[in-house]
Amino acid sequence: MAQKPSIPKGTRDFSAAEMAKRNYIFDTIRSVYALYGFRQIETPAMENLSTLMGKYGEEGDKLLFKILNSGDFLAGTMPNELHEMGAARAAAKVCEKGLRYDLTVPFARYVVQHREELQMPFKRYQIQPVWRADRPQKGRYREFYQCDADVVGSDSLLNEVELMQIVDEVFTRFGIRVCIKINNRKILAGIAETIGAPDRIVDITVAIDKLDKIGLEKVNEELLAVGLTPESVEKLQPILALTGTNEEKLDQIAATLSESETGLKGVEEVRFVLETLKASALRQTIELDLTLARGLNYYTGCIFEVKALDVQIGSITGGGRYDNLTGIFGMPGLSGVGISFGADRIYDVLNQLDLYPAEATTSTTLLFINFGTAEAAACLQMAQVARRSGISTEVYPDAVKMKKQMSYANAQGVPFVALVGETELAAGKLMLKNMLTGEQQLLTIEEAVALIAG
Amino acid sequence: MAQKPSIPKGTRDFSAAEMAKRNYIFDTIRSVYALYGFRQIETPAMENLSTLMGKYGEEGDKLLFKILNSGDFLAGTMPNELHEMGAARAAAKVCEKGLRYDLTVPFARYVVQHREELQMPFKRYQIQPVWRADRPQKGRYREFYQCDADVVGSDSLLNEVELMQIVDEVFTRFGIRVCIKINNRKILAGIAETIGAPDRIVDITVAIDKLDKIGLEKVNEELLAVGLTPESVEKLQPILALTGTNEEKLDQIAATLSESETGLKGVEEVRFVLETLKASALRQTIELDLTLARGLNYYTGCIFEVKALDVQIGSITGGGRYDNLTGIFGMPGLSGVGISFGADRIYDVLNQLDLYPAEATTSTTLLFINFGTAEAAACLQMAQVARRSGISTEVYPDAVKMKKQMSYANAQGVPFVALVGETELAAGKLMLKNMLTGEQQLLTIEEAVALIAG
Repeated sequence: MAQKPSIPKGTRDFSAAEMAKRNYIFDTIRSVYALYGFRQIETPAMENLSTLMGKYGEEGDKLLFKILNSGDFLAGTMPNELHEMGAARAAAKVCEKGLRYDLTVPFARYVVQHREELQMPFKRYQIQPVWRADRPQKGRYREFYQCDADVVGSDSLLNEVELMQIVDEVFTRFGIRVCIKINNRKILAGIAETIGAPDRIVDITVAIDKLDKIGLEKVNEELLAVGLTPESVEKLQPILALTGTNEEKLDQIAATLSESETGLKGVEEVRFVLETLKASALRQTIELDLTLARGLNYYTGCIFEVKALDVQIGSITGGGRYDNLTGIFGMPGLSGVGISFGADRIYDVLNQLDLYPAEATTSTTLLFINFGTAEAAACLQMAQVARRSGISTEVYPDAVKMKKQMSYANAQGVPFVALVGETELAAGKLMLKNMLTGEQQLLTIEEAVALIAG
Repeated sequence: MAQKPSIPKGTRDFSAAEMAKRNYIFDTIRSVYALYGFRQIETPAMENLSTLMGKYGEEGDKLLFKILNSGDFLAGTMPNELHEMGAARAAAKVCEKGLRYDLTVPFARYVVQHREELQMPFKRYQIQPVWRADRPQKGRYREFYQCDADVVGSDSLLNEVELMQIVDEVFTRFGIRVCIKINNRKILAGIAETIGAPDRIVDITVAIDKLDKIGLEKVNEELLAVGLTPESVEKLQPILALTGTNEEKLDQIAATLSESETGLKGVEEVRFVLETLKASALRQTIELDLTLARGLNYYTGCIFEVKALDVQIGSITGGGRYDNLTGIFGMPGLSGVGISFGADRIYDVLNQLDLYPAEATTSTTLLFINFGTAEAAACLQMAQVARRSGISTEVYPDAVKMKKQMSYANAQGVPFVALVGETELAAGKLMLKNMLTGEQQLLTIEEAVALIAG
């Protein structure tokens, strides 16, 4: 036999068992998005490279998968030209299109391109694969799905509230206990401003993050080591000493940032979101977390991340508010807030906690064993009765040895097997075997359907 | 403003309204596949070019989208080399991967790669986009979805029967009246053999196809003109004169092909499928059609196509049996039978016949108008009650002019709007407006939910 074929590194085949679980995840997220009035769109896998380039930084440009122009891609280039210009420019010469790298840039492009047709606020969700030429490693793939929802064209904090409700609902449906971490970019800016180090937000959040592990003294040493002045470090002490409930922390931050208009605005935003959420009785916990500092160049208001409480794994969901989604395409001033569920990590969490419902792990409910042409013909008719009651049903297509057919049933995890041999055929009945208990009953197909559906 | 961004030619954005309809199509097909015990798999968008090249003919190779190698794609090539070797070989030099062109080759690759894990018969379905660098034109896209189901590892004709039942069920659910055309590659081979022109199958089927339009005399003239001998044309006359029911036609063909073992085998196969289907009371018509000659190099047994009866459009579904799916990957002898629904054409048919159910065209069921912070807070709580009853609900995020909010409701096609102003807030109620009838009722949220759900 020839060498076994394979797939490109960093990509995956999904088996039937994996797909059933993945569909459970996507369907759950999709249902909740729809329940909140978000509407699905899809964009093409390929975008013009002019749409994608320069949107993800220099490193991102390198991670774009580029598609070779069809036909004579060398037409219009001189023999030495490509080598002389170097790989990056040469790629731009022979490729006009690339695979989408995320769902945000295509969404921004979509909003600008279709702005005349769109009604604001525009609440869209999108569940599609993205591709990155990253070095593959455990948990990092070159093709993976993103599950994004965004509201654009509304500055209202009710949108943030709603996204937190969505997170709460999705993880409650999954049965995953989580903590939602919330922060606000304006609070971070306010802190940096107040301590007189406006460009040191990252150092500050890193330091706060280390408090639990290395203690206040070491954190202060590190802050001085990375170049903060003793005055800045001194002014930061009330922030490092924050304790108490979300409300208490917000009060302490407000007191510390009393001179910073931006900082106070951030406190007010988080306070509004948390206060408003009180009435909706979230089943998951939500916690102000000043160490949260995702996407500083992009987010401008509230930011959030979700951590699973019972599994050690990175953030499984994240998002935030941004002020200028579409400026890159020449349409300034469009603000929005979005969220993205990490399907691959959620998959791992559900696996580790064994939380998949039975429906996500079985497919066929009833399998008819094939004893020959006449029996199979009767089975086909009975199978139709079962299917019309919504029972997923198979008739084994070949009259092969019983053992082979039963081993197929076991491999598929089929819970009920129907045997229609000569006797059953004559009686117009079937022998229904419960594969879990081993119990057998002689029944009409209607009785069998009632028993299975019951 | 900068130039409006655009997408590559031949690709499409799908709006929320389009996606709702497309999801209805995919979900219907998916449900029926699952009802028959088919299980979903997914394969990566990118395959190694070694997997794809040479599988679709020379023309097909040109239509593959190739992905430029990441990093320095020119490394290992000499300055003049690419130009000297010509575009096709140069492409192979700078690209290792390509986008999948259909779902069949990736499926064959999947079966071979995972053969140790698979239980035969393997019934899989797959609904994913494919990409072809075809010249875009009306109804032909460079990115489109295929919806394939195949059973491999079973020679039983019960699989063909089941696929016909699936076709019947899917189009009955859609409400599209169709005719299923069935033929058999062996009948065609038998005819060609019997008239002594084994390599003229295509000419023969083209001729039969023209009978209705140009008449027997002209058909015979054309057959002679394309080089069939007068004896061959003479022997073909009984086939051209076929009339009657499927059974009558099969009898006449059997008589004509009495010397051809292959031909008689084909007749017997079609007869078995049609006979067996009689017991399942198909709601759509099924018709033996000798003009059907799809994929001659690939299919080896029964072949079928589906035509919509009430819309002028090409085949909307097709498939057949093949003998050697995986031989191209060094695993010979694996037979199977498959079917593929043409989602884009089904979309057009449903549109033209206006057959989409209401669920496929509405999203949000209930919209709360926003009259200000206090009212909105109450609305948020009521919205949660509605959502917990499964009603898709939005709270308009901004307290803007009523007119703007109502125009949003109209644009989204929201059937119910809830107004919670000062009076309603004080009464703990909402004013529910039926957007279709204009009727308004003062209700508690529980009463409103009951009314909407009812």
